[in-house]
Amino acid sequence: MDEVDIEIVAEPALDAPVLIEGLPGVGHVGKLAVEHLLEEFDSELVRRVYSEHFPPQVSVGDTGLAELVCAELHAVETEGADLLVLTGDFQAQSNEGHYRLTNAFLDVAEEFGVERVFALGGVPTGELVEEYTVLGAATTETFVEELTETGVEFRADEPAGGIVGTSGLLLGLGARRGFEAACLMGETSGYLVDPKSAWAVLGVLQEYLDFEVEFGALEERADEMEDVVGKIQEMEQEQQPPVPTDEDLRYIG
Amino acid sequence: MDEVDIEIVAEPALDAPVLIEGLPGVGHVGKLAVEHLLEEFDSELVRRVYSEHFPPQVSVGDTGLAELVCAELHAVETEGADLLVLTGDFQAQSNEGHYRLTNAFLDVAEEFGVERVFALGGVPTGELVEEYTVLGAATTETFVEELTETGVEFRADEPAGGIVGTSGLLLGLGARRGFEAACLMGETSGYLVDPKSAWAVLGVLQEYLDFEVEFGALEERADEMEDVVGKIQEMEQEQQPPVPTDEDLRYIG
Amino acid sequence: MDEVDIEIVAEPALDAPVLIEGLPGVGHVGKLAVEHLLEEFDSELVRRVYSEHFPPQVSVGDTGLAELVCAELHAVETEGADLLVLTGDFQAQSNEGHYRLTNAFLDVAEEFGVERVFALGGVPTGELVEEYTVLGAATTETFVEELTETGVEFRADEPAGGIVGTSGLLLGLGARRGFEAACLMGETSGYLVDPKSAWAVLGVLQEYLDFEVEFGALEERADEMEDVVGKIQEMEQEQQPPVPTDEDLRYIG
Amino acid sequence: MDEVDIEIVAEPALDAPVLIEGLPGVGHVGKLAVEHLLEEFDSELVRRVYSEHFPPQVSVGDTGLAELVCAELHAVETEGADLLVLTGDFQAQSNEGHYRLTNAFLDVAEEFGVERVFALGGVPTGELVEEYTVLGAATTETFVEELTETGVEFRADEPAGGIVGTSGLLLGLGARRGFEAACLMGETSGYLVDPKSAWAVLGVLQEYLDFEVEFGALEERADEMEDVVGKIQEMEQEQQPPVPTDEDLRYIG
Repeated sequence: MDEVDIEIVAEPALDAPVLIEGLPGVGHVGKLAVEHLLEEFDSELVRRVYSEHFPPQVSVGDTGLAELVCAELHAVETEGADLLVLTGDFQAQSNEGHYRLTNAFLDVAEEFGVERVFALGGVPTGELVEEYTVLGAATTETFVEELTETGVEFRADEPAGGIVGTSGLLLGLGARRGFEAACLMGETSGYLVDPKSAWAVLGVLQEYLDFEVEFGALEERADEMEDVVGKIQEMEQEQQPPVPTDEDLRYIG
Repeated sequence: MDEVDIEIVAEPALDAPVLIEGLPGVGHVGKLAVEHLLEEFDSELVRRVYSEHFPPQVSVGDTGLAELVCAELHAVETEGADLLVLTGDFQAQSNEGHYRLTNAFLDVAEEFGVERVFALGGVPTGELVEEYTVLGAATTETFVEELTETGVEFRADEPAGGIVGTSGLLLGLGARRGFEAACLMGETSGYLVDPKSAWAVLGVLQEYLDFEVEFGALEERADEMEDVVGKIQEMEQEQQPPVPTDEDLRYIG
Repeated sequence: MDEVDIEIVAEPALDAPVLIEGLPGVGHVGKLAVEHLLEEFDSELVRRVYSEHFPPQVSVGDTGLAELVCAELHAVETEGADLLVLTGDFQAQSNEGHYRLTNAFLDVAEEFGVERVFALGGVPTGELVEEYTVLGAATTETFVEELTETGVEFRADEPAGGIVGTSGLLLGLGARRGFEAACLMGETSGYLVDPKSAWAVLGVLQEYLDFEVEFGALEERADEMEDVVGKIQEMEQEQQPPVPTDEDLRYIG
Repeated sequence: MDEVDIEIVAEPALDAPVLIEGLPGVGHVGKLAVEHLLEEFDSELVRRVYSEHFPPQVSVGDTGLAELVCAELHAVETEGADLLVLTGDFQAQSNEGHYRLTNAFLDVAEEFGVERVFALGGVPTGELVEEYTVLGAATTETFVEELTETGVEFRADEPAGGIVGTSGLLLGLGARRGFEAACLMGETSGYLVDPKSAWAVLGVLQEYLDFEVEFGALEERADEMEDVVGKIQEMEQEQQPPVPTDEDLRYIG
């Protein structure tokens, strides 16, 4: 096995597809958003990307079958645009790994004729969010303008710490390789898995790429989370506020 | 020295041997199990695998002789099947190391004509175990079915965190290279070295591969551990329960 | 992308320029000093150095545009000497990264005909500094003598822990590659971003390289910091002294 | 610069020299021992070994001159045997680094016709040592026997955690490359720099290799340390015992 090993699963012909990335991150916003796309649309798995930069791990599925951790790229055809959807359970585990895996993802994108890239994620506000603004960053001024018209907010020097991980590098390395890329970051508390924030991000994508997606399933998850938030708020009033750990979030999510 | 350096010690002719892995892990279940096999059967050391992914360390033996840490593969002929038994004192020390060493182990397996792989280990339950269930994960549905008949339990999405380290990658990388692989995980508290759990795992292996192994020595170790557990329980009733540290476990084991 | 990727932005003809490095470090002294040079003189960006040894990150600018983190080299012509000014927002994130990036910086320096290198930084004293001494270290005795005449202090075995990071390696690797290199370290408390210390360092450079730079802007920042220090001292007298965190310093700076 | 970069300083003809290693470690025993050899005998620096596996750092000397951290090999001719003495201020900073640097040291040893290797170090006892036993480990039975006759103690499975770092690998990798190697470990509390333990180790070496070295300087350092120990014991009787930190030891040493 090479350092990064791309398995070709299918080779559908796509029409200048848009790469949509949603790997785990703040509030699981990006991952929730792309999972929702893959549930609502017909999709075809086209690539698996294995790498020693992922954890040395297999996941075990419903029937006891073990599968090596990987990232996956799925082809989705919508009425508005063809999509190449990137998701998975892990980010790279080192700086070098992030650079090398992102370049591998962009190699696949290039093969499929991708010109535009959307990295989806969340941006933590530190408090429960009432209105779900989508913060943006992009690699060209035109892209900034177009997204501003769709309601995305661009704020000088925000997020303050920049954008890290695969999302950041899809913009940084993507721009250097000639892709036009944007990051859509749904505001989210940062404490909880946040389907509403994913919904807001998908709303932008839907308008910009001119497709329509049902939000029912996401709405249900959002309602479940509201119940959780409600209970937490009750508990806060009664006693010391509990601090949800990463572990809690995993199960809640 | 290369990154991974395989020393050829012997080249016995084996008949489609089964690779059995037991490196250090939860409750030392896997390591106890393969050590017991090597004690009970005649075995021949066939390979030593040295690597800079192991700690930079020599161990010192009975007579003051120093030996570079390594993993070892032993050939064992049983009435049921030939075995290639993999053991050692260390796992790789990094993600990349895990991937590269596991591939080296599979290279050796390939040379010897291995088709089936068993990774042995423990799965922590967090409490003292009464009945020693063996949890399984495998790379093919046939293998899952066959092992289910031997009493192995396959539970949807368990273990929750997947299987990490060499055991996990023997399944993950093994499957990609055409091996049929399974992981047998003896339930164990996770707090103590657990010969009974190793015994349960060996019981499955014995039935599936159709060999017979004496359990006397393992039983003795299990009795010793029961004494330890008994004493801990007494102490628990008298006072604050002691938390055994990694260091304790090493000496108890 | 290679491990280190040097983008050629411009190729001005420079006359044996002096390399001046000011990456983030103690009191941000080095970075403040070179930023001041770039603000006061006309400068031309000549190289961007990208690397997987930097964090996997883009920064987001005024207008929402994202840029991959990198180090930059700028050409500056002064009345005294031509300068090649190295700055950026990050140091390498690993030992190997430090060695490889510093060698890349020296490759660029070689291309431009650099013979002398100045690494700028701060040396922590642990207390508020009254008189801003500049401590030095250099790779040749001649250089030590010349800088001593400019008021730089050379103290046996100081700084005690040596000089680490890019600054240290510009001297260490630089000397091995035939550059004459010195490190100028402004004394600074180590607790606060310190424009006065940067000013002291620039004062040495100005005299040694025979150029003149306006200090107005740096003086203003110094005054702002004095106000901050004053407030901290007031607070110290009133109550327990606050310990500024890294995070505070970032915002103050 | 390569990953490991060996600078040839001198090429004296040596007669099957013995490699003596003393890098920083427990009680600085090994380093004190070889430093004493280099002070008492005429020696010639023959190699400097630079590497990105060392910290990215220069040390600053008496006159303000900066030098890149490295390991050094010195040739020493004694009446008993020629020596190749390896010392430096740092061990490698990673597992891989340890393996690669040790192999580089053995490359140099090979060039000079080395057949025997002594790795010097300390073994922590956890309490103040009254009688300075030297514990041994070696790569051949003959070597164990010979050293036993010189008073070295070989104890089954000790040290329990094996021997780590350069010392360990000089035995482990050395044996694989055909060197006969031993580690001499002076017992030491582990809390203090210990010249007496270094003295004990040198005593063995002196007898085995048939040379004579003056111990005056080491005795003086030992007396200084006794004073320190005495003061600590006084303080222990008066109050809570102080725990010397690494930092303290550095200055005391």
